Amino acid sequence: MAEKITPRATNYADWYQDVVKEAGLAENSDVRGCMVIKPHGYAIWEKMQRALDRMFKDTGHVNAYFPLFIPRHFLEKEAEHVEGFAKECAVVTHHRLIAGPDGKGLVPDPASKLEEELVIRPTSETIIWNTYRNWVQSYRDLPILLNQWCNVVRWEMRTRLFLRTAEFLWQEGHTAHATQQEAEEEARRMLEVYRTFAEEWMAMPVLTGPKSEGQRFPGAVYTLCIEALMQDKRALQAGTSHFLGQNFAKVFGVQFQDREGKLELAWATSWGVSTRLVGGVIMTHGDDQGLVLPPRLAPLHVVIVPIFKKPEERTAVLQAAEQLAAAIRNVPLREWLNYEPVVVKVDDRDQYQPGFKFTEWEVKGVPIRVELGPKDLEKNACVLARRDRPGKAGKEMGVPLTGAAARIAELLKEIQAGLFEKARQFRDANSYEVNSWDEFKAKIDEPGGFLWAHWDGTRETEDRIAAETKATIRCIPFERKNEAGKCILTGSPSEGRVVFARAY
Amino acid sequence: MAEKITPRATNYADWYQDVVKEAGLAENSDVRGCMVIKPHGYAIWEKMQRALDRMFKDTGHVNAYFPLFIPRHFLEKEAEHVEGFAKECAVVTHHRLIAGPDGKGLVPDPASKLEEELVIRPTSETIIWNTYRNWVQSYRDLPILLNQWCNVVRWEMRTRLFLRTAEFLWQEGHTAHATQQEAEEEARRMLEVYRTFAEEWMAMPVLTGPKSEGQRFPGAVYTLCIEALMQDKRALQAGTSHFLGQNFAKVFGVQFQDREGKLELAWATSWGVSTRLVGGVIMTHGDDQGLVLPPRLAPLHVVIVPIFKKPEERTAVLQAAEQLAAAIRNVPLREWLNYEPVVVKVDDRDQYQPGFKFTEWEVKGVPIRVELGPKDLEKNACVLARRDRPGKAGKEMGVPLTGAAARIAELLKEIQAGLFEKARQFRDANSYEVNSWDEFKAKIDEPGGFLWAHWDGTRETEDRIAAETKATIRCIPFERKNEAGKCILTGSPSEGRVVFARAY
Repeated sequence: MAEKITPRATNYADWYQDVVKEAGLAENSDVRGCMVIKPHGYAIWEKMQRALDRMFKDTGHVNAYFPLFIPRHFLEKEAEHVEGFAKECAVVTHHRLIAGPDGKGLVPDPASKLEEELVIRPTSETIIWNTYRNWVQSYRDLPILLNQWCNVVRWEMRTRLFLRTAEFLWQEGHTAHATQQEAEEEARRMLEVYRTFAEEWMAMPVLTGPKSEGQRFPGAVYTLCIEALMQDKRALQAGTSHFLGQNFAKVFGVQFQDREGKLELAWATSWGVSTRLVGGVIMTHGDDQGLVLPPRLAPLHVVIVPIFKKPEERTAVLQAAEQLAAAIRNVPLREWLNYEPVVVKVDDRDQYQPGFKFTEWEVKGVPIRVELGPKDLEKNACVLARRDRPGKAGKEMGVPLTGAAARIAELLKEIQAGLFEKARQFRDANSYEVNSWDEFKAKIDEPGGFLWAHWDGTRETEDRIAAETKATIRCIPFERKNEAGKCILTGSPSEGRVVFARAY
Repeated sequence: MAEKITPRATNYADWYQDVVKEAGLAENSDVRGCMVIKPHGYAIWEKMQRALDRMFKDTGHVNAYFPLFIPRHFLEKEAEHVEGFAKECAVVTHHRLIAGPDGKGLVPDPASKLEEELVIRPTSETIIWNTYRNWVQSYRDLPILLNQWCNVVRWEMRTRLFLRTAEFLWQEGHTAHATQQEAEEEARRMLEVYRTFAEEWMAMPVLTGPKSEGQRFPGAVYTLCIEALMQDKRALQAGTSHFLGQNFAKVFGVQFQDREGKLELAWATSWGVSTRLVGGVIMTHGDDQGLVLPPRLAPLHVVIVPIFKKPEERTAVLQAAEQLAAAIRNVPLREWLNYEPVVVKVDDRDQYQPGFKFTEWEVKGVPIRVELGPKDLEKNACVLARRDRPGKAGKEMGVPLTGAAARIAELLKEIQAGLFEKARQFRDANSYEVNSWDEFKAKIDEPGGFLWAHWDGTRETEDRIAAETKATIRCIPFERKNEAGKCILTGSPSEGRVVFARAY
């Protein structure tokens, strides 16, 4: 299979598409811009959901579900919001199909035309805040800490599997608070949840901080984000957390009586991550052999490939393999794996040769492969192969069967930590402080990466830089040091560097 | 709160609506026919999802995700299918809104009119079988055992929370097989999964069997179902499993080479249950005080209500309550609860009196309440109150604190078994063999229930009975005995009784 995967150095976009295909993660559907998420891809998303959902619940949130449809006039209420989302949305206008005039095929029944069009939710602030109006009367009804797992639709013209699709799956948190401070703390808290998830589960280091005005969510006072660097040195916005102020409370009339009996508008946040994160995992860790999965998000942790020629060898080897599998399933990693078991598969398919199996599981990114044959059995040992270090470098020979499960438990943690460290080093090695406009223009093309540069803080400069270089401000990082400087484009004063990159 | 709930005997429909509202399960949204599933209702659905998902995976299925949109011409391909679903569907015709001609408000941009309309999936057979065409070449590619958790839309004119809504959440399994026998076994296997879930998790007894032709899924060769009886003696179809034959393989061209190299069409099943099941739980177990939840589906198992007057009592009581809560969380019910913990809440809210708290948790259906006050503490004891037996009958006084957690673990199992037994007795007490048309017409009104009657097997008779009595054939139960008889309406011969009822 590996020969079906274009090397990253040859063409990164082709490499990505090949990995998504060969690892069985997703494919384009016959519906414009919509993807089919295949079982292996969906299993990774399920792992992500479980981990995030637990983190949301541990921070006091509960799940709920709101309608797929947004009445047109809801969208019209918030000026920036409509500007941001009305341009690319799926509009429902009829509720029935009937036989066409030629007797063949179906057409929308004119009699079923809706009085008001419905838009498929591109995001749910409007319908949720319209509902909150009835839920909030007193400060005692606050905070509301809700999350929703669902599908959303944004009519994208140029799509790419997982990274940008017309329909995608996501979660959207929507909270309502009695005070500005509480809401801002919430927005920051959820950003921290996203950072923790990205770094500790996806093994993907991220920068955190507010977006500049030009990159803000339509309707937000400010947007916080996590930003990662992919292997082609382009940035991926991996999650956002918005402080919405009182904008939605105002247009949907969400008022409450505070402790003094005064009527106040509620304060809002919203925050979301999507199936785009699956693309982030692929692009952060994948190699020319295929997918590489961080163990905490792997649907399958260990595959045992039995090796034998004669039928009598088969029985002994399979028996030893099953014994080892049982031992691995019992290693004490439950908490680390979000209270789910270590998943082990003995690949006992007779119609395939071991080499074929090695390649298949390699392409699918399984963290550890165990090889077990008659010669290993004679020595009561096995071979362990790490997916994150292909070839001989990642092989441990002659590992005693009695200690193999324990060693695998250690290895899973080592791999998780190693992937993060490797990605962090890559990110840092591809981050530059640039101090002039010429340097900026040169570096953004080659080598690319995160360019830390001074900026005068104006929308105009931001737009000019984007127009000339296709680089955008990824965030104003919380991680930056205070440092006076001059804007690379205009020379106007700046308080600190912001991070530019070309982005997905 | 209980006084806000209409007694069942007064008006069952009002009772249902009141329970849904007062228990915080769901509410109607401002979008026609769509509901908002509130946190407590959604938490019950999450419990259902977890249990079902594990059962699906234990029977070899994996999850995937297919597009929300069905191109119009997909629907047109299967004649019965289009007949069944084109009449009530949401039709997307445009992909952009622009400012209206008067400058105010938004209208669909005529330039964004789609070449082909998209229908929001009412069910996904068409788009999934269109995809399977590319996945299936050889018998080695079969079986495909997929499931999808998603939202679907059927444009219903008369909706009722959970039971019938325009948008609802569900799972839909779609499998492809090399032989008819394998597919039929699969349809039966999944029916059995549904039966097990209904009875062992929802504590809701069900009849199982094929539907008559008149009640079949559009496009199926036959439909198997589980049917339950609600407390108002109306039937609820709670899940269906369809054998689709080769219908969808034929229209979407899903062919494979069998072991002999011959081209064959694949065999299909599909099966689904929905958020309707939440309605089933409410109507099977609820009482005039509100919701009653079977412990295996309860988001909250035990609430401890501390009772005190003086501040010094508060500290001691709360401390004992927390200790007890910790002990309850450790009871060995993990496997029984699908590897999730026993959830216990100490209701330490100072602004509410114990009586208010009792009522609130009662309405929400929490299986066990623990009362703990200074007098109990003196005796190192507490009071346990069972939700399924309101009032004194369900109280255990002076339960020693040292043994309370163990007793609660027992009680949770007792309650689960007791709810099932009570529902089974109710169902059986409201099932009648009827032997004449007059008896049928009399009994279907009063007392109602499941009427076991002979039927001549024709669609015509089925339709006439429905037209005259609003009773439909719920299923041809696997549970029936072979018994020759005469159709209650026509007198024609019959091989066994079928089950009639008025249904939701």
